[in-house]
Amino acid sequence: MRGYGPAGGKIHQNRCEKPGQHQLFAAEHPHPHQAWEPTLEHYPLIGIRDEEFATAKKLITKEEVRAVTLAKLRLQDDLVMWDIGAGSGSVSIEASNLMPNGKIFALEKNAQYLSFIRDNLKKFVARNVTLIEAFAPEGLEDLPDPDRVFIGGSGGMLEDIIEAVDRRLKPEGQIVLNAVTLDTLTKAVEFLEDHGYSVEITCVNISRTKGLTEYKMFEAHNPVYIIAASKED
Amino acid sequence: MRGYGPAGGKIHQNRCEKPGQHQLFAAEHPHPHQAWEPTLEHYPLIGIRDEEFATAKKLITKEEVRAVTLAKLRLQDDLVMWDIGAGSGSVSIEASNLMPNGKIFALEKNAQYLSFIRDNLKKFVARNVTLIEAFAPEGLEDLPDPDRVFIGGSGGMLEDIIEAVDRRLKPEGQIVLNAVTLDTLTKAVEFLEDHGYSVEITCVNISRTKGLTEYKMFEAHNPVYIIAASKED
Amino acid sequence: MRGYGPAGGKIHQNRCEKPGQHQLFAAEHPHPHQAWEPTLEHYPLIGIRDEEFATAKKLITKEEVRAVTLAKLRLQDDLVMWDIGAGSGSVSIEASNLMPNGKIFALEKNAQYLSFIRDNLKKFVARNVTLIEAFAPEGLEDLPDPDRVFIGGSGGMLEDIIEAVDRRLKPEGQIVLNAVTLDTLTKAVEFLEDHGYSVEITCVNISRTKGLTEYKMFEAHNPVYIIAASKED
Amino acid sequence: MRGYGPAGGKIHQNRCEKPGQHQLFAAEHPHPHQAWEPTLEHYPLIGIRDEEFATAKKLITKEEVRAVTLAKLRLQDDLVMWDIGAGSGSVSIEASNLMPNGKIFALEKNAQYLSFIRDNLKKFVARNVTLIEAFAPEGLEDLPDPDRVFIGGSGGMLEDIIEAVDRRLKPEGQIVLNAVTLDTLTKAVEFLEDHGYSVEITCVNISRTKGLTEYKMFEAHNPVYIIAASKED
Repeated sequence: MRGYGPAGGKIHQNRCEKPGQHQLFAAEHPHPHQAWEPTLEHYPLIGIRDEEFATAKKLITKEEVRAVTLAKLRLQDDLVMWDIGAGSGSVSIEASNLMPNGKIFALEKNAQYLSFIRDNLKKFVARNVTLIEAFAPEGLEDLPDPDRVFIGGSGGMLEDIIEAVDRRLKPEGQIVLNAVTLDTLTKAVEFLEDHGYSVEITCVNISRTKGLTEYKMFEAHNPVYIIAASKED
Repeated sequence: MRGYGPAGGKIHQNRCEKPGQHQLFAAEHPHPHQAWEPTLEHYPLIGIRDEEFATAKKLITKEEVRAVTLAKLRLQDDLVMWDIGAGSGSVSIEASNLMPNGKIFALEKNAQYLSFIRDNLKKFVARNVTLIEAFAPEGLEDLPDPDRVFIGGSGGMLEDIIEAVDRRLKPEGQIVLNAVTLDTLTKAVEFLEDHGYSVEITCVNISRTKGLTEYKMFEAHNPVYIIAASKED
Repeated sequence: MRGYGPAGGKIHQNRCEKPGQHQLFAAEHPHPHQAWEPTLEHYPLIGIRDEEFATAKKLITKEEVRAVTLAKLRLQDDLVMWDIGAGSGSVSIEASNLMPNGKIFALEKNAQYLSFIRDNLKKFVARNVTLIEAFAPEGLEDLPDPDRVFIGGSGGMLEDIIEAVDRRLKPEGQIVLNAVTLDTLTKAVEFLEDHGYSVEITCVNISRTKGLTEYKMFEAHNPVYIIAASKED
Repeated sequence: MRGYGPAGGKIHQNRCEKPGQHQLFAAEHPHPHQAWEPTLEHYPLIGIRDEEFATAKKLITKEEVRAVTLAKLRLQDDLVMWDIGAGSGSVSIEASNLMPNGKIFALEKNAQYLSFIRDNLKKFVARNVTLIEAFAPEGLEDLPDPDRVFIGGSGGMLEDIIEAVDRRLKPEGQIVLNAVTLDTLTKAVEFLEDHGYSVEITCVNISRTKGLTEYKMFEAHNPVYIIAASKED
């Protein structure tokens, strides 16, 4: 069954050889076919457990929030997506599983996070994710225009990032931004509306038992505000 | 762009012609290629808006809960999934988008819901979903063994359904059940644990603004308890 | 047992005769002792059921949110409290039960709501609540300085109200404001911080079964953001 | 200002001298008036901050849940309340503030928790709370019949406790039980219904910002299920 990724999305060999796109990744995977075969069966398309990712505590978008985030991104098979402030790369990786013919560009500058992303791209064989080592909005100018943009972190540059994204987003494009503070929620909505976007905010409150404990205590995760923005015609 | 479904999952023509699988569906789609082309671009893989589905009020698994449900199902590309009490068919349809090489069997008996499912399968070109008109656990015996089972409704037959599923679930299979009442939550956990499953319960509380209203009032959806069950080795 | 209110808070007859305070109320209760006796036993101090209040749908602060709101008001026995945009008066009435020696001023201008408040003050024998028919910030100048201010509704005058309250709030005073829209949440926090307040925001998500249904379905109430503001020394 | 408690509820000197009620407490407060004067102004009736209580991490019923719990107890001024598994005593203490003419019996057996309760009763001058050092259902037989029972902890004796409570609860009495695990939620509802009670379950999900942080991140508390039970006529 040649050519299938970890969860079965078809791998088109030629995509991996487009120039200028996979430098970092290619350097790390001289023989990708040999490397990934053994893990083929283990990971789902979406819903990969948080503990499967190399990550720092509190960095990762938790699996339930990630699923809702991907739903709000309204992905289709062959879109271009920017993942700004990619953190551990978990959103890019599951987006890659959903869009085997898409192109995902993950921007991150933090050295530790870059190391996590590299490990995770390798582990989950995310072949159509390109890692860009840059502090957004720097690094965006050379990328193809996006259909979808996910902003998971803004490093204090939120307004500049939204401006840069707005100049490049394709017609009928969509922006999704996850906020965990009132400050980010408020500013993101304000900036997006100032640039002509309609926003829908979804607050996700998750509590989860631990599967193996006898008493099944519900433990709450902090709420996340998922802002989905699009331009009306 | 021959051969692509509504969100780009590849359609393998031969799958549609397997005997015994698509009777109902085939009867309704004598010329499927003509029917679906115009809607090709409009629907995402997951995150299809609730209002896009033919459904009755309060029947549908709402888009955010659907996304978390699909994540908990830990789908891979080519699995067999049973969707018991399929309702409007929204979970089957998005599972179908995630698993272009999978086989999904949607069971439903309610005449109105069957009509919704037929309309939705047609609209979203869900070619690898087979609709089974049966009241579970009836109708399960003829299906291939499942890797994944989603129980969205049980019609008062919960224990029988769990027993029937347990006899057929493949090793490393997973069951996901959505409960909106304490009664179902309690019984499902009890029955599943009695049959040797470990369960993890995720309570999903969503509130959402309406995108176009000026004041962005958060409106809460009723909480859903997503029970994910698997057997340890 | 002369002199007890509906839930047992002592009624000090002399308080009711302070000039200038209970005009409206006095006019309606020429013989208060005769009116309230029969209902003495039926209502709790806090936790009065929503359906016990005369109110319009969606107007009332629901019982659980009311309880948390009263907790955030940090009431003591003999404080002066303003209730701005009193709605159906439910917060004033339970605050009155908590503060038998306090003075509560409920401001409201909407004619229908005024009628609800009058009915509710009568029913629950809330003797130390003075109803002020005014559109805040109008009507505040003649009231005694407040220890506590609850803003349940602002009628589009939020900034003016916060300014007026800030000029009059006693040292160590506290303001509590309930927001159900992002617009109000954002502006209230901004205005309060601009005036030197520290704010704590508590988001309350309640779901509740209906006691008599067999299956105990959890029904969610819309989330309420309770903003508690105080000045540091 | 003779005769006022910490939050202004009138202290009736004679209540403190009822025989058989305040043995433990009396021993610790030979001169209560001298001890509590300095703290008179600082504590609210309800909404005392969690950090004001002597307690262990995760033991205390958090302030928002405490407020809703007290609302569900539907307290009136002069009721008899049992607080079974009193923990740090926070519910008893605020109930005492609400019911200056009530009698509250707090049962606890854990030595550390008993020490917390003693410290807290002293600090908040909770004069009508009697601490009973017993492991329920032991210790209940000598108490006066209750109008209200709060079960905060059951030490594995839930069914026995509910049976013992049921034998003694006054007509129109109410039981409130807080559950944080599915196990307790399920069993409590089952036992209460088996004994003829109607139950209403309120799930409280709270998230709160920290007042002084610049970015106001919402931190979730674990959900609590508040079960309110009463017998219909």
